[in-house]
Amino acid sequence: MQNFSLKNPLDMHLHLREGDMLASVLPYTSKSFAAGVIMPNLKTPVCTTKDAKNYESQIRALAPDFQPLMTLYITQGLHAKELEVARASSYKILKLYPKGATTNSSDGIQNILDAQVLEVLEIAQELGFILSIHGESNGFSMDREYEFASVFTTLAKCYPKLKIIIEHMSDHRSIRLLEDFENIFATLTLHHITMDLDDLLGKNLSPHHFCKPILKTKKDKEKLLELALSAHPKVCFGSDSAPHLLQSKLQNGAAGIFSAPCLLESLITLFEEHGALENLQAFVSDNAIKNYQITLEKERIFDFQKTPCTIPKAVKTKDGEIIPLHAEKSLPWSRV
Amino acid sequence: MQNFSLKNPLDMHLHLREGDMLASVLPYTSKSFAAGVIMPNLKTPVCTTKDAKNYESQIRALAPDFQPLMTLYITQGLHAKELEVARASSYKILKLYPKGATTNSSDGIQNILDAQVLEVLEIAQELGFILSIHGESNGFSMDREYEFASVFTTLAKCYPKLKIIIEHMSDHRSIRLLEDFENIFATLTLHHITMDLDDLLGKNLSPHHFCKPILKTKKDKEKLLELALSAHPKVCFGSDSAPHLLQSKLQNGAAGIFSAPCLLESLITLFEEHGALENLQAFVSDNAIKNYQITLEKERIFDFQKTPCTIPKAVKTKDGEIIPLHAEKSLPWSRV
Repeated sequence: MQNFSLKNPLDMHLHLREGDMLASVLPYTSKSFAAGVIMPNLKTPVCTTKDAKNYESQIRALAPDFQPLMTLYITQGLHAKELEVARASSYKILKLYPKGATTNSSDGIQNILDAQVLEVLEIAQELGFILSIHGESNGFSMDREYEFASVFTTLAKCYPKLKIIIEHMSDHRSIRLLEDFENIFATLTLHHITMDLDDLLGKNLSPHHFCKPILKTKKDKEKLLELALSAHPKVCFGSDSAPHLLQSKLQNGAAGIFSAPCLLESLITLFEEHGALENLQAFVSDNAIKNYQITLEKERIFDFQKTPCTIPKAVKTKDGEIIPLHAEKSLPWSRV
Repeated sequence: MQNFSLKNPLDMHLHLREGDMLASVLPYTSKSFAAGVIMPNLKTPVCTTKDAKNYESQIRALAPDFQPLMTLYITQGLHAKELEVARASSYKILKLYPKGATTNSSDGIQNILDAQVLEVLEIAQELGFILSIHGESNGFSMDREYEFASVFTTLAKCYPKLKIIIEHMSDHRSIRLLEDFENIFATLTLHHITMDLDDLLGKNLSPHHFCKPILKTKKDKEKLLELALSAHPKVCFGSDSAPHLLQSKLQNGAAGIFSAPCLLESLITLFEEHGALENLQAFVSDNAIKNYQITLEKERIFDFQKTPCTIPKAVKTKDGEIIPLHAEKSLPWSRV
């Protein structure tokens, strides 16, 4: 029997939603990860320390062993004073969405380079915040991340001490930004390193593979997979697991892949297949701890063995079902 | 009140299906078009003259004024003798699907350049058939038509007297084939000249904009629109209207856009917007009559006036609803 262990795996980009859905999806993350970066794009966005504390307490009440790393949503109304309050509460990640780029981003920023936003970023740099960005233009889908490179470049130059994270990097043309700028980092999802546009629309349309940024070309997938497998020191794992009710996926075409139920088992399988299992600890934990300077409240070891597990067909909530990525698929590894 | 007339408009690529769905969708075509090329990819494909005669009689019984131009599905089992029978019945269009390329294409051809297929094409050339091809490789979706160019090139060179139609051209890189080979022609759909990939997935996922070949880039759309607006002499209109029940679109991710209810009204609006209304007659009729050498059974004039019409919300069938392209949208032109 083969065994494998991960110390303090971290999901550095996670959507948990609220209420009944939060209660339904959180166990899939808390059973596998020591901590996770919690996205603030709730229906009413998490914009203040007060909002974040409230949301954090809901999460902690449901999963006492899981450490939520809270983020604040950058809206046009965010002020310097709020940033000071946040730092005093040890919150240190800001999330920037371009207005309209993805689910619940209507409160995002229309013009990232406008004076008021830049003033906030200036203060964020001074206070030692990390700036996580959903980096997409409003251009053609397949080029949105590429077109956003100029914004990353400008921000990286203007705020050399501000750590900037390219969230869910999806385009191989973004990789050079990691080399060009000391203060640019990235998170990678499971789906962007293992799937491409054909998995969404190459045969029949697969709404459960629809996400933002959109899955890209085979080349993008391969180059990003290389980054992950090598555990590039500026890259770490962030699932972007984003649950939507089945009816919302089918009726409204909601963007988001609910990958939480199969993440580590899939990553172990993937890294093993590519002979890179020794790099997985860095990819799912060590790189993030170093780059984000995370202090974990407790140490947790997660043990896996080579016995098959099956990804659930659906996760039930009060309002309907959520279909996980690769529902009903069997994987060779499972949690002990 | 502005008026506009079209003489003998033709839909040179049309899916009518069978049974109750045929009865539900055919009126939308027969009220607008004098004739149409009827695709043979029924659940049991139309492979023989006998099949085609049977299907033709069903169509004619439902729409006596509409002239169906029948096609035969090229399967591995198609023989020379069958081609002779078809020509004797004045059927002259063969449809080639690469196996698995689209809806009901599992009987299509695995290897187009194998000896048996080439023998059939040799005879098809001798007998004066037209060869309509769904030209896609099994590569990456956005490049499937481009990658198929080598097959078009080979066939055009091997059979210089065989007229070859690039059906539903979707990639601007295919346009050069029209210039390079005297015997290569194309049909264009409404959706490929007015929509791009972002209409499928740029905001929420829009399953009613999912089709094969997939909608491509903005550049593809623009270049193909130019071809249509100029009524390039080797190009004609073929809607590829392809009805699917709503539940099949949502549950199975079926590929196909049901555009029949709005075609001419949309084309008149489009050509008028671009100051090209004088070319529409050639695009929707004259080019096809010349290139396919069509003998119409009767002359029909279709009159339009500038009063708004609304595309239906849904077309009901016994088994469920079909949602048309641009359902409930208002257009400035309507049939008199």
